[in-house]
Amino acid sequence: MGTDGVDLVAALARVVGADWTYTDAHELRTYESDGLLQYRALPRVAVLPGSADEVRDVVRLCAEAEVPWVARGAGSGLSGGALPVADGVLIVLTRLNRILEIDLDNARVCVEPGVTNAAVTAAVGPAFFYPPDPSSQVVCSIGGNVAENSGGAHCFKYGFTTNYVTGLEVVLTDGSVVQLGGVELDAPGYDLLGAFVGSEGTLGVATKIWLRVIPAPEAVRTLVAFFDSTHAAGEAVSEIVRAGVVPGAIEMMDAVTIGAAEQMAHAGYPVGRGAALLVELDGAAEECEALFDEVVAVCERCGSDDVRVSRDEAERALFWKTRKAAFPAMGRVSPNYFVQDGVIPRTRLPEVLTRIDALADEYGLTVANVFHAGDGNLHPLVCYDGRVEGEASRAEELAGAILDVCLDAGGSITGEHGVGVDKRKHMTKMFADADLDAFQRLRCAFDPAGLANPGKVMPTPRLCGEVPGPYRQHPMEAAGLAERF
Amino acid sequence: MGTDGVDLVAALARVVGADWTYTDAHELRTYESDGLLQYRALPRVAVLPGSADEVRDVVRLCAEAEVPWVARGAGSGLSGGALPVADGVLIVLTRLNRILEIDLDNARVCVEPGVTNAAVTAAVGPAFFYPPDPSSQVVCSIGGNVAENSGGAHCFKYGFTTNYVTGLEVVLTDGSVVQLGGVELDAPGYDLLGAFVGSEGTLGVATKIWLRVIPAPEAVRTLVAFFDSTHAAGEAVSEIVRAGVVPGAIEMMDAVTIGAAEQMAHAGYPVGRGAALLVELDGAAEECEALFDEVVAVCERCGSDDVRVSRDEAERALFWKTRKAAFPAMGRVSPNYFVQDGVIPRTRLPEVLTRIDALADEYGLTVANVFHAGDGNLHPLVCYDGRVEGEASRAEELAGAILDVCLDAGGSITGEHGVGVDKRKHMTKMFADADLDAFQRLRCAFDPAGLANPGKVMPTPRLCGEVPGPYRQHPMEAAGLAERF
Repeated sequence: MGTDGVDLVAALARVVGADWTYTDAHELRTYESDGLLQYRALPRVAVLPGSADEVRDVVRLCAEAEVPWVARGAGSGLSGGALPVADGVLIVLTRLNRILEIDLDNARVCVEPGVTNAAVTAAVGPAFFYPPDPSSQVVCSIGGNVAENSGGAHCFKYGFTTNYVTGLEVVLTDGSVVQLGGVELDAPGYDLLGAFVGSEGTLGVATKIWLRVIPAPEAVRTLVAFFDSTHAAGEAVSEIVRAGVVPGAIEMMDAVTIGAAEQMAHAGYPVGRGAALLVELDGAAEECEALFDEVVAVCERCGSDDVRVSRDEAERALFWKTRKAAFPAMGRVSPNYFVQDGVIPRTRLPEVLTRIDALADEYGLTVANVFHAGDGNLHPLVCYDGRVEGEASRAEELAGAILDVCLDAGGSITGEHGVGVDKRKHMTKMFADADLDAFQRLRCAFDPAGLANPGKVMPTPRLCGEVPGPYRQHPMEAAGLAERF
Repeated sequence: MGTDGVDLVAALARVVGADWTYTDAHELRTYESDGLLQYRALPRVAVLPGSADEVRDVVRLCAEAEVPWVARGAGSGLSGGALPVADGVLIVLTRLNRILEIDLDNARVCVEPGVTNAAVTAAVGPAFFYPPDPSSQVVCSIGGNVAENSGGAHCFKYGFTTNYVTGLEVVLTDGSVVQLGGVELDAPGYDLLGAFVGSEGTLGVATKIWLRVIPAPEAVRTLVAFFDSTHAAGEAVSEIVRAGVVPGAIEMMDAVTIGAAEQMAHAGYPVGRGAALLVELDGAAEECEALFDEVVAVCERCGSDDVRVSRDEAERALFWKTRKAAFPAMGRVSPNYFVQDGVIPRTRLPEVLTRIDALADEYGLTVANVFHAGDGNLHPLVCYDGRVEGEASRAEELAGAILDVCLDAGGSITGEHGVGVDKRKHMTKMFADADLDAFQRLRCAFDPAGLANPGKVMPTPRLCGEVPGPYRQHPMEAAGLAERF
């Protein structure tokens, strides 16, 4: 922050108030990482603005001082996207937590970025709901969801955050304020809205967010079916989708996950079975009923001899509790674990699982698999013991090898956790130099000085204005996947 | 094109072949406008490349010669988006009309840009379909749909082109080739894909397009209900949506339109009634059935004494034929007309219609109204007689005044036709200088020399690198609409 650091801190405190300006290392410790604890850094100062105008003025001060800054929501992200820049400014948006307008006639809500995901559904319920539902929905903020284009279990049917944001008020890195999109869909001009959603805080900071909400389904029905293998459960997933059924959610857990989750949730799941498939249908009551019978039949045809249908809301909640216990429960069966996040074409599921199993054997580590099976979004949990010399780095290597398997299958390095600082190194496996240059063009158009969340998303730090080098062959092409991109 | 014109034409002919290089004024006349005939210009040369590589080489030649170019699909657009630059190069993409891959297991299709919209549905049917359905779907090209982010009658339920494009191969203005998105949804990195869809040919030209298709609904049911007034029909629309029903389409026609369309389609519509509402439900058969009864009840409650339910596919086709005849039929009742395209919040429908009627009286002209009512997307047809001195310009003025009414109601200057050359002048009514600067940043990042479709979208031609002026107050704020953006 240089010699002007003190002046900048004083100027920031004049904007947001001294009470909301933290410079003490002890206070700053709260913000040294997000949900991905491997990466830590202390900012020089954290400010908690109380209004959009204060955010704008903070960004302007940073621009004048040429000091990098990072915007942070609830800090529950899993890719290090909210990792502070050491000695930079951290803009914490938790105080901007007001719901500004609820317009159910037009199915729209306008919120500040610090509002939690769950608060949106609470505000528009029970007649409406906000579909994107990250596991962290009780704590995670809409601003963070916008930055990461967050998804969740219901995104197979309902889509991601980007499908629900209709408008943003954004403070750009020069402190100018722009409005992208609006209350209606499909605004004229360039769809910068879409480019900002998922830009991981590198193009500006949203201070006002318009969301589309949708009518709550008339009926919801949930079942869990047990199979001998993930292979058989994967077949059932393909069959269900091929039959034209679009479940609200299709979640799969493998044997390791079932065992761990059962220990914590006590749902009476048969420990030792190869796979559990949770299928939820929602929609009109009669449609649900008819399709539900079809799903039960498919599960049985694919080898499930144990299909449990939730009889009431309490049992449905228990099914979900078990699924959502998967991550925390793993802490009971393994001292440490990495959560990986990769995507594969749904049809390649059996083959990819076989390869992951082989890799786990090769590395001598346990990998538990939990998936948003409909999306082909895998969350392999790579278990390890951090006390054993070298096991953490072997686990990290295995987690990377699993991503390579996803890419080989024509998939992606992240489904919903974002690139952040964690997946940067994998970007060149997925994108050609020309593609990354296109990203850089956008980035530089909106942040020529590189002040907004630098060191995230892009694989190598590059100054704006640098001439791109000679182009490599496209990595997907080199892998013989040109036809699938 | 300067003194190098002849050399450039020769070089272009070497790329695409002399047979596909048109320089003769007579041949070029075909391409002097798109569907909006008010604007005409002759390019210096039109080329019809036969492959993506040829498109790339053509763009490279234009970049080297610093000659502006325009990409053109079927030329059915209605905003002058494909209007050639006088003396520039026109890249006609009709020969790139191959369907490259059909992958129904993953519900994806990969096509070249010249493939028609209807051909996509034909290729994946009857099990699947491609939802965005512009009226021109039989002729319009997917490339043009991508450029304009086209919609249609079924977009209320299913969304626009942008909701179905998962990947693009794009030739940028410097001739580099990038891949945006892919076969999966929600790719990592910046969502440039969204920014390219709807960029009206100003950021590059798509040479390969990956589309998502969806399972065809099990059942489709269609009705048309007649009302005394558009006010009453508008009430029915609000009631239907408020009841949580999401029809595949809700189309409204006013008295003038009913009269004109009936003359052409002979569907037995009661000429003289105030409004016709066409409602189509699709989905699971049982759901359709149940919801259909609800829609009929709502229509009757809102004052319709004449609800006609299609008994078979032939009658359903007749209902749609009448709706789709609305535009051409208007040519029978009026020597000339302008098709306007504006959006309003659905709830403001009755009020906006009253204001449009008052404006029509004030100008002494007839305005026929056809709407995608669910979206609040109006298509007022401003009728005039071009042979009467001054009537064309009065009609144009009235069409502009109608857009102002849409904006006053918190709406938008275009729903699905795009900005092109026609709506440029209205952009400052909807966007603040800072918003337009944000557009310009994107434009300049990808087309610093301003060669790709210059003179479109942006309200005033501006060179890249120009410093933005002092900021005006946001137009929506000035109109007291800040709370709604």
